[in-house]
Amino acid sequence: MKKTGVKSGQKVKKIKRQELTTEDLLSGIRNFDKAVLAKSITLIESNKPAHFDKAEKLITEALKFTSKSIRIGITGIPGVGKSTFIEAFGSHLTELGRKVAVLAVDPSSTVTKGSILGDKTRMETLAKDPNAFIRPSPASDSLGGVTRKTRETIVLCEAAGYDIILVETVGVGQSETAVHSMVDFFLLLKLAGAGDELQGIKRGIMEMADAIVINKADGNNLKNVKITQTEFSRALHLYPPKENKWTPQVLSCSSMEKTGISEIWNMISEFIELTTNNEYFEINRTNQNQNWFLQTVDELLKHQFYQKNKIKEHSKELLTQIKAKQISPFTAAKLLVFEPK
Amino acid sequence: MKKTGVKSGQKVKKIKRQELTTEDLLSGIRNFDKAVLAKSITLIESNKPAHFDKAEKLITEALKFTSKSIRIGITGIPGVGKSTFIEAFGSHLTELGRKVAVLAVDPSSTVTKGSILGDKTRMETLAKDPNAFIRPSPASDSLGGVTRKTRETIVLCEAAGYDIILVETVGVGQSETAVHSMVDFFLLLKLAGAGDELQGIKRGIMEMADAIVINKADGNNLKNVKITQTEFSRALHLYPPKENKWTPQVLSCSSMEKTGISEIWNMISEFIELTTNNEYFEINRTNQNQNWFLQTVDELLKHQFYQKNKIKEHSKELLTQIKAKQISPFTAAKLLVFEPK
Repeated sequence: MKKTGVKSGQKVKKIKRQELTTEDLLSGIRNFDKAVLAKSITLIESNKPAHFDKAEKLITEALKFTSKSIRIGITGIPGVGKSTFIEAFGSHLTELGRKVAVLAVDPSSTVTKGSILGDKTRMETLAKDPNAFIRPSPASDSLGGVTRKTRETIVLCEAAGYDIILVETVGVGQSETAVHSMVDFFLLLKLAGAGDELQGIKRGIMEMADAIVINKADGNNLKNVKITQTEFSRALHLYPPKENKWTPQVLSCSSMEKTGISEIWNMISEFIELTTNNEYFEINRTNQNQNWFLQTVDELLKHQFYQKNKIKEHSKELLTQIKAKQISPFTAAKLLVFEPK
Repeated sequence: MKKTGVKSGQKVKKIKRQELTTEDLLSGIRNFDKAVLAKSITLIESNKPAHFDKAEKLITEALKFTSKSIRIGITGIPGVGKSTFIEAFGSHLTELGRKVAVLAVDPSSTVTKGSILGDKTRMETLAKDPNAFIRPSPASDSLGGVTRKTRETIVLCEAAGYDIILVETVGVGQSETAVHSMVDFFLLLKLAGAGDELQGIKRGIMEMADAIVINKADGNNLKNVKITQTEFSRALHLYPPKENKWTPQVLSCSSMEKTGISEIWNMISEFIELTTNNEYFEINRTNQNQNWFLQTVDELLKHQFYQKNKIKEHSKELLTQIKAKQISPFTAAKLLVFEPK
């Protein structure tokens, strides 16, 4: 009897979940219900046209509850220890009474068909922390799609009261600019090496970084870390001063031994104070919002266009004709847009 | 008298140039007139709406003259010696009777407002070679824009009879995928180092490469080159076999001493033979053309939308409202697309 009871109970719960309205989702998010937040993000990430309107409504509603959040982008090549760093840094923040959401942007997961990041098993402590929320990278067929979904996920997390958003990127090259376009502070993680660190570093990344943190500053590595820190400090001085008047810092930490972590948070707090006072914080968010608007317009135009069945069919026909070399890609595109069937 | 004659001659030429019709441009291109080809590319790169229709017509016409070309993408971090390599490799090809066009994709030049690549002064021999044509990276406000313009430039160069197109990319991360999407063969240039080459390399780039060439294989560097070559060969074997059945090769060369250059061309010729026989060459081009079609549709939709003055004005208003926080980016985008003024 008891067993049956549990079973039907589960069934009811399942049905109820499927029926959750936008209002239900929003109130769950506002009540700090992680399961509902996760479900809402899944809705946003869905590529099913049926979910589109509901997701749109949810975002519009969630946007009314914007909080005073700090959005921090974290990048670094695979192996630099991003997960361990976020585990240590995020735990430090929740100890300070902050609510931390960890999101990931990984366009390469669109190739491998699975996210390699944001894996909860790699952030065990944080995953169990009631004041932390971890979400892996959304799957999408384009970096643009991943970017849009991550931006909307930030909005949901902020509506849920998370006041520090950590956006992690795999650091394989395409995603840094996208993450930079949605955060207030951009942190580059590096390892100390044999002194040729500057060789492999991408120019654009150095320009974007508000801070470089040398990770794994522990054990026999400490001397190398000092050398690397000096080298990066010198290199950063070669760049023109930033619009936000902030001088990028070079710090070090040990995510394993949890040293240097509070110093990183203090530095970011200084950055927030400086850029709040000189209004760059707001200017930057405004620019980001304006770009978000323009990108959303593009997405909606595409969506609206391909929604029509006739266009879908015509597009398929043209793709076949391109394959058969009966038409050039350029002429086909002109036909579809200007003289659709 | 003579001097005046020259002057008025120049004036006539100038007026004539301004008046060149699509037909004039096309016949100049077909007659292997480099100046007209350059002018045509400038037309394509123009962001002035007045030039749009003419550029479109030119591309459509040029597409009718597609030749049997080979498109080769070349990437590598700054300092690897891309220009010197292209100088040596391109000259080798023109000596074999080929006509070589060198194009560049450099999205970072949109930030620095000037191309750092394709600089003719860095490829002196090739720049003077009657059978070579060098064009720097187009300026654009987006990688998408650069990509589109480069693709269209390839079409013009092929219509002009250039049968080998070298597309260079700066290798700072964003442009490799774009270049990979428009070439038949993707070559990664590397330097030999202290044995930690794999550390800095981006996973996605390794997966895309059809060949890795260790440059600067000369002097005291030869031993290091051998070690590096072995390391990369091993690493490449860890990747799953490619769809085109091609096993990526690791070669070495000295662009300065011009050794190993003919071997690289032989390898690419083998690749072309293999993929022509197993039809992957055509399959790949078809995929690329279909993607080009879809991207062009997106571009045209945007163009068509913002062409209307009312939309332009409404968009400006909404951007102001976003700045004043009177409206969310998402709601604003919906308004502009679904309920424009």
